Formats: sequence, C-alpha cells, structure tokens
Amino acid sequence: MAKYVIGIDFGTLSARALLVHAKTGEEIASCEYKYPHGVMDEKLPNGKKLDIDWALQHPQDYLDALARVVPRVLKIGEVSKDDVIGIGIDFTACTILPVFKDGTPLCFLAEFMSNEHSYVKLWKHHAAQDKANRINDLANERDENWLIRYGGKISSEWALPKLMEVMDEAPEIFEKMDYFIEAGDWLTWLMCEDAKVNACCAGYKGLWNKREGYPSKEFLKQLDPRLENIYETKLGLPVYPSYTRAGTLTERGAKLTTLNVGTPVSMANIDGHACLPAARITGPGKMLLILGTSYVHKVLHSDEMPIPGICGVVEDGILPGFYGYEAGQCGGGDHFAWFIENNVPYKYYEEAKNHGMDIYAYMRQKASLLKAGESGLVALDWWNGNRSVLVDADLSGLVVGMTLRTKPEEVYRALIEATAFGTKTIIDNFKISGIPITEIVAAGGIAKKDPLIMQILSDVTNMPISVVHTSYASALGSAIYASVAAGSKLGGYDDVYEAIGNMGKVDDFVYKPNPENAKTYTKLYEEYKLLHDYFGRGGNDVMKRLKNIAKEIN
Amino acid sequence: MAKYVIGIDFGTLSARALLVHAKTGEEIASCEYKYPHGVMDEKLPNGKKLDIDWALQHPQDYLDALARVVPRVLKIGEVSKDDVIGIGIDFTACTILPVFKDGTPLCFLAEFMSNEHSYVKLWKHHAAQDKANRINDLANERDENWLIRYGGKISSEWALPKLMEVMDEAPEIFEKMDYFIEAGDWLTWLMCEDAKVNACCAGYKGLWNKREGYPSKEFLKQLDPRLENIYETKLGLPVYPSYTRAGTLTERGAKLTTLNVGTPVSMANIDGHACLPAARITGPGKMLLILGTSYVHKVLHSDEMPIPGICGVVEDGILPGFYGYEAGQCGGGDHFAWFIENNVPYKYYEEAKNHGMDIYAYMRQKASLLKAGESGLVALDWWNGNRSVLVDADLSGLVVGMTLRTKPEEVYRALIEATAFGTKTIIDNFKISGIPITEIVAAGGIAKKDPLIMQILSDVTNMPISVVHTSYASALGSAIYASVAAGSKLGGYDDVYEAIGNMGKVDDFVYKPNPENAKTYTKLYEEYKLLHDYFGRGGNDVMKRLKNIAKEIN
Repeated sequence: MAKYVIGIDFGTLSARALLVHAKTGEEIASCEYKYPHGVMDEKLPNGKKLDIDWALQHPQDYLDALARVVPRVLKIGEVSKDDVIGIGIDFTACTILPVFKDGTPLCFLAEFMSNEHSYVKLWKHHAAQDKANRINDLANERDENWLIRYGGKISSEWALPKLMEVMDEAPEIFEKMDYFIEAGDWLTWLMCEDAKVNACCAGYKGLWNKREGYPSKEFLKQLDPRLENIYETKLGLPVYPSYTRAGTLTERGAKLTTLNVGTPVSMANIDGHACLPAARITGPGKMLLILGTSYVHKVLHSDEMPIPGICGVVEDGILPGFYGYEAGQCGGGDHFAWFIENNVPYKYYEEAKNHGMDIYAYMRQKASLLKAGESGLVALDWWNGNRSVLVDADLSGLVVGMTLRTKPEEVYRALIEATAFGTKTIIDNFKISGIPITEIVAAGGIAKKDPLIMQILSDVTNMPISVVHTSYASALGSAIYASVAAGSKLGGYDDVYEAIGNMGKVDDFVYKPNPENAKTYTKLYEEYKLLHDYFGRGGNDVMKRLKNIAKEIN
Repeated sequence: MAKYVIGIDFGTLSARALLVHAKTGEEIASCEYKYPHGVMDEKLPNGKKLDIDWALQHPQDYLDALARVVPRVLKIGEVSKDDVIGIGIDFTACTILPVFKDGTPLCFLAEFMSNEHSYVKLWKHHAAQDKANRINDLANERDENWLIRYGGKISSEWALPKLMEVMDEAPEIFEKMDYFIEAGDWLTWLMCEDAKVNACCAGYKGLWNKREGYPSKEFLKQLDPRLENIYETKLGLPVYPSYTRAGTLTERGAKLTTLNVGTPVSMANIDGHACLPAARITGPGKMLLILGTSYVHKVLHSDEMPIPGICGVVEDGILPGFYGYEAGQCGGGDHFAWFIENNVPYKYYEEAKNHGMDIYAYMRQKASLLKAGESGLVALDWWNGNRSVLVDADLSGLVVGMTLRTKPEEVYRALIEATAFGTKTIIDNFKISGIPITEIVAAGGIAKKDPLIMQILSDVTNMPISVVHTSYASALGSAIYASVAAGSKLGGYDDVYEAIGNMGKVDDFVYKPNPENAKTYTKLYEEYKLLHDYFGRGGNDVMKRLKNIAKEIN
C-alpha cells in the first residue's frame, strides 16, 4: 500500500500544499489557498492606519489555510488520510508573532485587536531599522564574535529588532506576551504537544548558534536592561533542527489539519531553505540559486568560515553535519519587472501585439538575438540595494555605455547580465573564502520560465545549471522532511540524505555555458567588478549622497 | 524711404532667408528653400553608392536656393529690390568643395560627375578621421603651438583632413582643382568679383591665425610632401573678416540673386557664429548658447588664452577687436529625442493621448512637477561623446541612482540636468582659464520651445538666460553684417557694434535661477564633476573598453 506525505509552503500571499509519494517524491496533487487578509501594509482589519514600512499578517489566515489545503489535496489526489504518514511545513521568515503560553495569539483578544504590535510581523516589515542599527552598532563596538556569521550586519527583518520594536512602542504587549515566536514554529506547536523552535529560523533570523547559543546577557543588558534574560523567557524555547520530528498530531492538531491523531510532524523550516532537499543538494560544491523578485543563494560546507557579506551561516541549519551558508541579492526579477513597466516604448508593445506575444516574451526574443558584449553596456544590479557581498541598502542602480544607437532590448539584457554578474560576485566571494562552487541548481519562477536569463547565468558563471523539477520546490522539501519525520517503519525514511536522493529531482535539461559568450562575459565581469568596488566600497559614495539629497528634498 | 537688407542662412537641409529693416532689424519677411539633393549620404545623383560616414551636397542646390529665396522674400515683404542695400550669407562649415579658378565646381563637369570627391563635403562628412588623426599625431609630436587654439585636437570635419582625403583617394581631382573652398566663400565669390575666404571659416576650420598665418611649410611637408605649399595654392586665398564687405554684386552676381548690380555683399560667416550679433552680444561676459541636437557655446574676450578642450579661438573671427572662443557639447537635444523614442512606456503615450498632448509636452509636464534632486539620479551627457572639455568621441552615457521606484520622467529630467551640467563644466572651464561668464543668451529650437530645459539651465548655471528674439537668428546676423557692408551712406551702418545694438534683439522674458534649485544643483554638480573626471580623465576607461568589446563582437 503506497504511503504519502504532505508538504505545505506558507508564502507571503498564500499557502501551497503538495501531496507526494512518501518514497519516490512523485507529485500526486497540489493546491493553493490565498490568505483572506493578505499582507496588511496599509491598515488593520478594524481600519486603523499603518505607517509606511509596516507589513503585518493575520494568524487566523494560517489556521484557515491549514484546515483547507490538507483535505483539498487529499481529495484531488484521491488519497485517504489513513495513508498520510507525515506532514511538514515551511514558512517565510522572520515572520513572527506574540502569543500566550497556551498558543493564543495576542491579536485574537479584543483587548489587543486594535494594537498593531499584537499581529504577525511579516518578514518584510521594515519599521525596526533603528533597532537593527542599535544592535549592529553595539555588536560592532563590543566586537561581538557572532556578527561575522551574518556577514557583519544583521537585518531589521529579524527577530530581535522586531521584538525591540514591540518593547519600545507597545510595552503592554511586550509584558503580556509569553513568547515571541516564528509563525512556522507556532503552527507546529499547535499541531503537536510542545512549543519548540526550528534551528533554521533560530540560526538565520534569531542569532542562535549550535555551539555558542545566543548573544550574551552582558550584551543584551547593555542593549536594554529589559532584554537581559530575553533568551530564557520570551525567546527561550528549545531549538531543534528542521529535518527532525516536532512530534505527532494531538487532538487539537488533528482537528487543525483534518488528519489522524498521531501523524508525525516535522519541525518547521524557512521556505527558501526547504528548496535544498527538493534540489537534491546533499553536500558542498553545488549552489542552490532561488530566482524570484530577489535572488537567494545557499551552499553547504563542512566547516564554519568567516565569509564577508553573507546573510548567515548556521550549523545544522539546513542539513545534518553541514554548515548552511546563505547569501542574497536584494534585486533579481524585480529589475526586469521595473524595466518592462517603465522603459519599454510604445512601438514595442504594438509590435508584440502584432506578433501575438506578451511584452515579456517579445523583449526576451529581442534580447536573445543580441550577442554578448555587442551593446557596449554594463550595469550594476543595485536597484534595490545590495545584500551580498556589500551589505548596503543605500546603494542604487547604474548603467554605463549608452549611445544614441542604444536600444531598449540592449538595456534590458544589460540588466539581466548585471544580476548574473552579481551572482558571480557571490560565487567568487565563497570561492576566495575557501568554499568552491562548481555547479548551480536553480529554483524559483525565473528558472522555469526564462531560458534567456538562465543561459546568461550559465554563460556568466561559466557553470552548468540544472533546474529543480517541481514548481513546488519548498513544499516538496517540507514533504521530504515529513517523510523523514515519519521514518522507515511507517513507510518513509530514517535518513534524510536517502530521502533527498530518492525524492528530490532536477530536470534532465541542463543549461551549459556557451564558450564564446563566457569569454566575452569574463571581460565584461572585469568591468562590473571595477564599478562594483568603486561605487560599493567607498571609492565614490555618490549613491548614498544622492539618496541623502533626495531625502532632504522629499 | 526705408532701406532693407537680406540675410540668408544656408543650413544642412535648406536655406532660410530673412528680409529686415536695415536700421531697426525689424523682420519684414522670411522664406525657406529645401535643397533638392538634400544630404547625399547613401548615393551620388547617378546612383553610385557612398560609404558609411560620407555626407555630400550638390552645389547647384545653393545656386538654386539663392535664385529662389531672394525674389520670394521681396515679394512676401512687398519690397522693391531697389530698396535692398545689402545681402549677407552664413553657411554650415566646414562645408567645402573643389572648384576651378573661374568658380566652376568640378562636379559640374561630366568628367568628374561620378567621382564622389568632386562634390561638396558637408560639415558632417566623417570619412577623413584617419587624416585628422595623422595631423593631430604629427602636431603633437612636433609640439605645434597652434594646436592649443583648438583645444589640443582638430576634427575630421575640417578643411585640411577633407583635402587630404581627396589627395589620397582621388589624386586626379586634387591635381585638377584650383581651390578647395568653403561653400559660403564660393557663393560670395560668384556674387562679387574676387575669390576671398572669410576669417571665421579660415580660423575655426582652416587652421588660419591672424598673427601667425597657417601651419608651417615644414609641418606640412612632413605631413605629406604634396602639401608643402598648399596654403599658397589650393587653400591660398586672401582672408577677410566676416563683418567686412566682400564686394558688390557683379552682372553675374545680380543674375544669381535677382538683385541690382552694385548691391553690397558682406563676407560669408559660419551659421552658429552669425547668431552672435542677432543675440546682441558685443563683448565679453555673455555666452551665446545654441541649443539644438548638439549644444554650441561662443564667448568673446579681448585676449588670447590657451583653454583646454575648446573647439577653437579666432582673433576677429566673430567681431572686431575680440578673440572669439567656441566650445561644444556633442549631444544636447538628441539625448531627449533618444529618450522619447526608446524609453517612454506605453501607458504614458496613452495618458498623453487622453490629455490631448503630444508625448514631448506630456513628458515635459511630468518632469516639471519634480523637484531638483528628488529623483536621486545623476547622468553623464555623453551619449554622443564629449567635445568640450574632454575632446573624446569614445566616451558614452551613464546614469546612476536608479531604484525600483524610479520613474521615466525622472530619468528624462536627469538627462536634461546632465546636459546643463555639461554646459556648466564648459563655463567653469572658461572661468578658471581667465574668461568669466556672468550671463547667457540662448538661441536654437530648444530656447524657444522648451521652458523646462531653459529653467534647468538657468538653475544649474545659476545665471540669467535671455533668449534671442528671432527664430531666424543666423539669418538676422547675416543681415546685420549686410547692413554694415552697405554702410551708413546707403542707409546701413558703418560700425558693426552700432548695427548690433540696433538690430539684434532678445526677448523681454528672462529665465532667472530659482535659488532653492540652484542650491541643490550645486550639490548635484559636485557629483557630476566627480563622475566626469573619473570616467573622462582616465580614472576608469570602461567606456572605451566597452566600445572596443562591442567593436570586436560586431
């Protein structure tokens, strides 16, 4: 009798569930549930206005999603819940909320409903930048050794700045909450018995380290006396790796999921990290590249090394026995969307219409006909700032080389090339820090849909690039972890690497570098690097000064 | 009885004639004649194909223009030829042709008709770059002191490179021609008795200097033995200032113009320089700024000073007693045309249509609503290279500061600002070389039609800018010189400055700097200068390398 596992990927706007065969990873059914409240970035449910930079969610949406997608995939897949041997979830992070010790979110209470700090602060809630700055300044001042694990700077998106924001701006909520917990951990807790937190979130977003634990009480006290014991109290839940079992469904958990009591549940995971098992990456040398509006890069390595400009390195954060390194480009696909929306002339729309093509396809076709280097353009892909390797949100975009003969498709292609040069910069940064990369596996919308971007990435990095087979990479990764949580006795796996080897899958087609283009891109990359270092490492801080001038004016 | 003068401006595509009152400069009538052959840049009249970079004209077009526009303006203005006391012309330059000693162009003979070197080489004929390079190299090597008068580099557009092209590629024409003469000088010669050349063309395009004459025979011989005596032979006609009388109409001249025998004719002039009297500029301190597809700058000063990066300085080249300095920006209005054609999105066209506006007016309106500095953008206006002050055709465009919120009108405005920063760079270059400028008078299409560009120029330069009143500035300037050629006895002027004071005119409305914007632009100009020097003076030759890569690919 075939057994099945369910993986659910809780994204920014919806939850997507995947029902897969627990041994082969074969996809049986999938479905999506859009959160009714979506992203609350303008007002609370009661109409109360939110400041700019805010981004909240409603935890009820996650519960509703869970209750709907599980029976739905089972129905579509014609699978009985009796044959489901495990469930796993992944979540955006740091997406975090204040709860009582029975698991009730504070925003469920009438008392706190109209206080914006009682809701889930979504990963892209950016209102705690001043707290992040304070943490970074003090950590730098005290020369805290954990800072280098995060490339030298922590983000305003993470748990501690978000908690400090509550502490400073809604002290009553700070007082009343028992835990400030990642939404993914909150969900697995409600499904199982005990409250625990996953090592992936704790490590990448919560300043936790397997060997050294959290930042010292001394540091915390100096940051704010109210924080001295915070990692023993509100942030003090026990940490378990994502590839381990969180528990089994309780009565409450069975009701929430419509599955049987006793069904194994894996620890939650960060959505991007859940792609790694789906991409069949089981060790060093291969980089997972997630190509969305922004780009994310993940690499495994057996040692911990200080690498400048990464987003984080966490021991056992992704897979057992490895340090998981994460890097990122703040801008990826959003450059192309910006270009298409703001820079494509009227006549191209007309021509696209005449060819019966959408404008993306038309621009892709025009840009595909260009040879590498023929436009004479180079760009810096910093429209949304730079995460790795410069860690500087105040950088901005640049294009050089325009003439009166420059065509829109040339600028479009220059932007694609620039994002690829950004990826190569990250690869080189790993390489010179002692982590060689020889191959890329790509996931995300662009990987499946845009052969031009993929080929340019291959040409620029001069590496083969495979593409994750499924369009539900994160959900498949969660399903793989669910299979491991179930174990071999139930029909799953005892060993996570065995599970990955059998359930993860990449497409047969592999992008391979075109040697001619790769040669030209080697030259263009030299130009990119020169500009990168000049504008990004203090040679000319014009980008920052321009932003400051703009701020003064507005 | 009122007396009149006629000024004719021979442009690139047409001749435009202006009939004005000889005392007041009041415009009585104007008309235009388009050259039937236009610019021959693809083939000769007989169908013979031309190489890229070629640009020829047919001298018969000029004769036809003369014969048509003179009677036409008289008819429109209801003025008798008996009341016309002078005629003057200005011409594009260096626009030059080989002729026999009776004035017949070689291309009029069946023998030479199918040889492209027998025609007029238009100013923008660019096929003699290798000759210009040879001249520049040798002049540099020999440390020729005349080179600095041209900012350190002469252009392929000028007389000597164009003549060398004939010599090398059509030696039979080089041998047969008696003179290689500017088209403007050729026309005044045909109108009057003797062949002469005007000091403006000779100085700015012919390497002539009032005190030192032409380059030495030694230099010329080393350049090519066949050139040793060239300035005593084919380029050896006597030089007279443009504001002097060339002669009076002969029988032949009367027939060509349909005017009376004996009517005074002024020396020809370069079209841009003819704007100066129309702009009522009579001395140092004011800069004439001609705003077309490219920008041209003209300043008078009492001394000759070595100024890097100018196009030329000529004693008595514009007005008596002054050195006339010329500088230039290779790109001006053509940046904006490029932007409108290639970068304005579909939705803006739709919105413009809904507002009943053309796309230029709509973009102008949107860009006008922005405050200086609010976009966070700065550009380098080198889409067509840089003439002053870097003299480098291989530079290219740059925009820095883009974010995902950058709007098309912001980039558009950044381009306008960049061209204004380019103008300010030229003004500063004059200033630090000892030629202060405190005021601008603008001419050209943009000056009349685009208040946004004008205001930004005023804000960036922090100077008041007046606008030449007439839309026929060059033709009015030629008419003013015609009035001086006539002299006071006939009803004109004996003194050119008196003529300018009474006949030149600027609009009452003056653009004045907005202090707030001027302050912001001072900051942005600092950024422009940093980028200008970094990319323009060898800090990073990426623009040249990108052009080389593109050349290798194509």
